[in-house]
Amino acid sequence: MLILKDFKLITSKDNSLIKLISKLQTSKKYRYENGLFVLEGLRICKDALDTGTMFDKLIISKSALEKLRTEIEILSENANECIEIPDYIFEKLSDTKSPQGVLAVCKMLKNNTEKIDINGRYLAFENVSDPSNLGAVARTCEALGVSGIILSNDGLDPYSPKVLRASMGTMLRIPLFILDDFAKNLASLPHKKYACVVDRDALSIKTADFKNGSIVIIGNEANGITNETKAVSDFEVTIKMTGKAESLNAAAAAAIAIWEMMK
Amino acid sequence: MLILKDFKLITSKDNSLIKLISKLQTSKKYRYENGLFVLEGLRICKDALDTGTMFDKLIISKSALEKLRTEIEILSENANECIEIPDYIFEKLSDTKSPQGVLAVCKMLKNNTEKIDINGRYLAFENVSDPSNLGAVARTCEALGVSGIILSNDGLDPYSPKVLRASMGTMLRIPLFILDDFAKNLASLPHKKYACVVDRDALSIKTADFKNGSIVIIGNEANGITNETKAVSDFEVTIKMTGKAESLNAAAAAAIAIWEMMK
Repeated sequence: MLILKDFKLITSKDNSLIKLISKLQTSKKYRYENGLFVLEGLRICKDALDTGTMFDKLIISKSALEKLRTEIEILSENANECIEIPDYIFEKLSDTKSPQGVLAVCKMLKNNTEKIDINGRYLAFENVSDPSNLGAVARTCEALGVSGIILSNDGLDPYSPKVLRASMGTMLRIPLFILDDFAKNLASLPHKKYACVVDRDALSIKTADFKNGSIVIIGNEANGITNETKAVSDFEVTIKMTGKAESLNAAAAAAIAIWEMMK
Repeated sequence: MLILKDFKLITSKDNSLIKLISKLQTSKKYRYENGLFVLEGLRICKDALDTGTMFDKLIISKSALEKLRTEIEILSENANECIEIPDYIFEKLSDTKSPQGVLAVCKMLKNNTEKIDINGRYLAFENVSDPSNLGAVARTCEALGVSGIILSNDGLDPYSPKVLRASMGTMLRIPLFILDDFAKNLASLPHKKYACVVDRDALSIKTADFKNGSIVIIGNEANGITNETKAVSDFEVTIKMTGKAESLNAAAAAAIAIWEMMK
């Protein structure tokens, strides 16, 4: 029998920590004010350990503590504090329909733009709105070796439960930069910037010459890239389309753009 | 005031047509036994008209008939029979949460493999399981000018309501071939076949030489391409991955493969 680290028992849904987690699950504002986010599920928590993420709090439901003892033992070694809660409170905190009973509160890593490699190749996503798209794009970036992902702060929060799930842990492994004042801060980076647009007259992405120190920019799913961001880009590039479909799905377009940049 | 084509009124949920539609919405077997499928929503029905699809039956809810008179006038001209039903019956028939009240029963087009262009470039998807993936792949195929899509009959039904929605009408515009005995029937086609695999030792898709008369094969999301299908392929090709992500999302991988084939 394994000896588990001490678990503190919380049984009231009015406890301040329970309230904190509940707000972190639903409020982007609250996550950034506190610099904290929530990981839910055994798999993503284990993935997080592999990236060296420390758990500020590890919250386990009563029945998970019984069922998943070995796995929780490993997780608990990397947690500052371990807490057991009743199943019914866990269900209230959970963002999923069938919670596993495993949840961790983690500190956000502050990445400022100084950490952006001037010789790197980055993907920038302006005002992304669909969690599945951001998750898929993050996976593509990681699979093809992109240096990092740059997001505008008006789009989806990469630390939201849905995006963390859709990215299958990639969000925790890939360098991530969130820019306020997107166009202006992008402009201050020395990289060549390639804005992906739907425009038959733009430069074909096939013939674009991506060098080290490049950023490919993808726009919002419905509205594309803002004029401000286009204005600070060096090139407008396009994926030539021959058919009748109005446009490619954003994640498919991003996959092709990333593929071309990384070739 | 427009004069609408005669609408027959059906008010009983036990009517045989109502029962037929209900089964067509949920049962693949039933769709193929009857050679019929259902389109739901104004947009997709209008898109279908543009492709020359005839509506065998057009089913409109009472309130849609009042609200969408002009649009329904146009649809009704291409329908063999027009039927009005009460809103509450429409809600039972609908596959969506907030039905628009517009639904059409259409005949499947039988595409046999003789119609496959020997000089064409096709995408084959073996045993696809996720409607969003099939929808996104179909959109990519259409946008990049693929000649058609070949599916194995053990995967998702392209005529299911979810796939029709996810493809945004592409499924009705792109030539579609469904093969039973997938590997054997694929083998009988004269095209060069490129099986996409996750294997660092396979040929890089970048260096593959796609010619006219090509088929790129994508496998099931969880299990990849079957050994039988690999055995009838001419080449195994791979998208080289450098990162830690286990693999690309199927729709992202397909986008890159289609892009390379169509270059």
